Amino acid sequence: VTAPDTVFFLSDYGLRDTFVGVVHATLRRLAPHAAVIDLTHEIAPFDVRGGAMALAQAVPHLGPGVVLAVVDPGVGGGRRCVAVRTGHDDDRPRWLVGPDNGLLVPALEALGGLDTATVWQLAPRPHDRGGDPSVTFDGRDVLAPAAGAICRGEADLGAPVDPAGLVKVAAPVVEHDNGGGRVTVRAEVTALDRFGNVQLAARRADLPAQIPAPDDVRTLRVSVAVMARFAHPERDDAGVAARWVSTFGDLERGELGLLVDSNGCLALVMAEASAAAALCIAAGDLVALTI
Amino acid sequence: VTAPDTVFFLSDYGLRDTFVGVVHATLRRLAPHAAVIDLTHEIAPFDVRGGAMALAQAVPHLGPGVVLAVVDPGVGGGRRCVAVRTGHDDDRPRWLVGPDNGLLVPALEALGGLDTATVWQLAPRPHDRGGDPSVTFDGRDVLAPAAGAICRGEADLGAPVDPAGLVKVAAPVVEHDNGGGRVTVRAEVTALDRFGNVQLAARRADLPAQIPAPDDVRTLRVSVAVMARFAHPERDDAGVAARWVSTFGDLERGELGLLVDSNGCLALVMAEASAAAALCIAAGDLVALTI
Amino acid sequence: VTAPDTVFFLSDYGLRDTFVGVVHATLRRLAPHAAVIDLTHEIAPFDVRGGAMALAQAVPHLGPGVVLAVVDPGVGGGRRCVAVRTGHDDDRPRWLVGPDNGLLVPALEALGGLDTATVWQLAPRPHDRGGDPSVTFDGRDVLAPAAGAICRGEADLGAPVDPAGLVKVAAPVVEHDNGGGRVTVRAEVTALDRFGNVQLAARRADLPAQIPAPDDVRTLRVSVAVMARFAHPERDDAGVAARWVSTFGDLERGELGLLVDSNGCLALVMAEASAAAALCIAAGDLVALTI
Repeated sequence: VTAPDTVFFLSDYGLRDTFVGVVHATLRRLAPHAAVIDLTHEIAPFDVRGGAMALAQAVPHLGPGVVLAVVDPGVGGGRRCVAVRTGHDDDRPRWLVGPDNGLLVPALEALGGLDTATVWQLAPRPHDRGGDPSVTFDGRDVLAPAAGAICRGEADLGAPVDPAGLVKVAAPVVEHDNGGGRVTVRAEVTALDRFGNVQLAARRADLPAQIPAPDDVRTLRVSVAVMARFAHPERDDAGVAARWVSTFGDLERGELGLLVDSNGCLALVMAEASAAAALCIAAGDLVALTI
Repeated sequence: VTAPDTVFFLSDYGLRDTFVGVVHATLRRLAPHAAVIDLTHEIAPFDVRGGAMALAQAVPHLGPGVVLAVVDPGVGGGRRCVAVRTGHDDDRPRWLVGPDNGLLVPALEALGGLDTATVWQLAPRPHDRGGDPSVTFDGRDVLAPAAGAICRGEADLGAPVDPAGLVKVAAPVVEHDNGGGRVTVRAEVTALDRFGNVQLAARRADLPAQIPAPDDVRTLRVSVAVMARFAHPERDDAGVAARWVSTFGDLERGELGLLVDSNGCLALVMAEASAAAALCIAAGDLVALTI
Repeated sequence: VTAPDTVFFLSDYGLRDTFVGVVHATLRRLAPHAAVIDLTHEIAPFDVRGGAMALAQAVPHLGPGVVLAVVDPGVGGGRRCVAVRTGHDDDRPRWLVGPDNGLLVPALEALGGLDTATVWQLAPRPHDRGGDPSVTFDGRDVLAPAAGAICRGEADLGAPVDPAGLVKVAAPVVEHDNGGGRVTVRAEVTALDRFGNVQLAARRADLPAQIPAPDDVRTLRVSVAVMARFAHPERDDAGVAARWVSTFGDLERGELGLLVDSNGCLALVMAEASAAAALCIAAGDLVALTI
C-alpha cells in the first residue's frame, strides 16, 4: 500500500477569506507531493447535512486519495476530529478526515460502510507555527495536518475509536405510497445546482419497476406536487406535470422534465432554464411524484 | 512531439456544486502528471457565445497544453463532442476539447484557424466508474477523459471529421460608418469585467489610422452612445464623452475613458469605478463611438 | 539557498473573468515546477488596504515561497512594481512581489520588517507573447513573470531601491482609554468573514493584562459599542454585552461573544450565526470594548 498523493477538499469556508488558501498552504508544507483538489467550498455556512450529502454524491467519482471535509460549527467544542480508513482498497478514496459531526458518514457509506472502517480520534497536535494555539480553525491546525500525515504514510494518527459511535445526520426523506391505484414517491430536495436543476433524494429504483426507460416510451408524465414552505399558494393542488426524459435536450422550452441525473438521483429539470425557479423550491422541501 | 502536461479548464459550472472538483478528480486519475488551470467557471449558465468569446481572448496568453471547455446546454442531445488539434506547433495550446456547439471555434481561430486544424469526434467511452452511464455530465464522462487521453499521448481519439463542419457562433458586431465627415464605429459589448470595464468587440485597428497614440495627443474625446435595451431613456442622444487614454491612472475621478485593454480590445473604463454602472450597460449592448 | 517552488497568490481579480487563470498560465509557462496556491481573489475591487490587511494575516501561516499580490488600481501609472526579499530565512515566505502602493508592507512587517528587507524595482520586461505590450495588466505582464523568475532562481530582478521608501497604508486604528475606572479599547473592524465573524484590529495584548483566560473565568462580559456609520440609530448608547469565550461552542444561541481568533485578533462572534448581521457592522467601522 502506497501513501496517497491526492487530497480532495470540501468545506463551507467560501472563497472570500483566506481560509481555503491557508489550508492549501498547510498541506503544501506538510505533504508537498500531494495534489489538492477543491470539490467545493460553497457549502452553506454551518450546513453539516448539506455538506454530508454533497460529499456522499461526489466520492464515487473520485480516485484514490484523502477526503478532507470541514463543515464544523462545533469547532473548539466537544465534538471530536477523526480520520477514517475505509475497508476496501479499490480506486476510490481510502481516507476521510473531518469533524465527527455527521459530515463524513454518508460518504463513508458510499465508500464501503461503517462495518469495515477503521477510525482514529485525532490527537491535538503541538502548534508547529509558533504563537498561541488556536481553537477556532481546526481545518488548519488539526485536520489538514492529519491529511498531510496520511499522505506522508504516517501510521500514528491517534487513539482508535469505534466506527459505530460516529455521529450521523438524518437521512434525506424518501417515502412510498401505493394507495388508490397510483404510486406516489415523496422525496426531499437534496440540492439545487447552479443551473436550477432540482435534485431529489429518490433514485431510479424508487420508481415502479415497470416504468420503461425514457427512450422506450412515447410520453410518460409524472405529477409533481411541491409540499414545501416555499410553494406558491396559488399552485394547483393536483401538481404540475413533468415528462420522463433522458436528458435536457428532450424537453421543449418551458417544459418540466424528470430524469436520472449524473449522480444517479431523480431530478426535476428544464432545458436551458431553472426548474428551481419555475417551481419556487428550495433544498429541504418535499416533492411528491405521482405516476 | 511530447504529450501535453497542462489542461486549461473553462466552463459554466460555477463553484457552488462539485462539478468542477469532480472533473479535476477525473483528470487527476487519468493524467496524474498534468496540471489543471482553471480559466474561469463563471461563464453565465448556458451562454455558449459568451464562453466562446472569453475563451478566444484567453488562449493567446496560454502556454502549451489542452484547452478543456464546457458550456454545453445540449449535453446528451445530438451535438457532437470533439477534440481539435491546431495546425501550428508553437508555445500556445495545441489542443481544444469541448462540445461542437460553437464554443471552440473563435479560440481555434485565435490559434491558427480552421484551415490547418484536425478534428476528431469523440467516441462515447465505456463508463469506467461502474454504475449506469450518465448522459447529462459529458464534462466528466467524455470530455475530461479525452483531455486526459491527449495528455497521455494517446492517438486514437475517435473518427476524424471535417473542420469546416464545426458549428460556429455569430461573430460580435463591429460596423463602420464614415458618413457626414465623422467616423462612427458601432461595436458590441463583449464582456463586463469585475471592475466594471466595458470591453468592446472593436480593436485599435477599427479606429481611424490617423488617430495618434494617447500619449501623443493632448486630449482626444470620443462620443459614446449606447444603443441598447438597458440605456437610460433620459440619456442625451448625442452621447457622452470619453477621453482616449493609455491607462486608468490617466483619468480623473468620474471621467470616462477609452483605451486598448490587455487583450487588445477597445474598452470603456473609469479610474477606480465601474464604467458599466455609470453607462448602465450590459454585455450584448451596442456602443457607437464617434470621433 | 534553493529557489522557491511555491507561489501564494492574492488579488482583487475575482473569479468571474479569466484574469486569475491567465496569471496561473503565465506562472505555469515560466516556472512549471512551482505550485500556485490561491489565497483569495475576492479582495474588494481596488481595496489596497483591505488586501494588505488580509495578506498580513495570512503570511504567518504560509510555508516557504513567493507571495504574489495584486490589488493595483494604479496599474500603468506612476507607481512602481517591486520584488521584496525578507531578511530572515525560516520556513515562511521569503519573497513578496506586487505593486508599491502599500499592499505589501504589512505582510513584510509580519515577516521580519522593513529593516532587513531587500527591494528591487521591477524593470519592464519585453512582452514575450507577441503583439503590443499592455499597460493595464501588470499582474500578467510584470508581476507574475517576476515571481516566475524568482522561482527559477534568477538574480537580476531590477534596480535595488530603498526599503524605507516603500509606500505604506494607514495602520488600522487601535486606541486605549483608561479613564473613569474602566478600560476602553477602540478598534477598527478589519474584516468580516463568510460566517459573519467581526475581526478587530485589537489583539489579546490590547486587553488589560489581569483579564483571565476565558476558561478560567465564570462569566466576563464586555460592553460593545459600535461607533459606525452603519450602526442602528436605536441602539443603546451603553452598548451590548459580549461574553469573553474561547470558542463558538461556548455561546448560547443568539449570544454575542468576544474571542481570540485563529489569527490572534479579537473578534466578535456568535454560534452558527452572523455577528456582523446582528451588530449591523462593516469593515472600517470602529468598535469600543469596555471592560
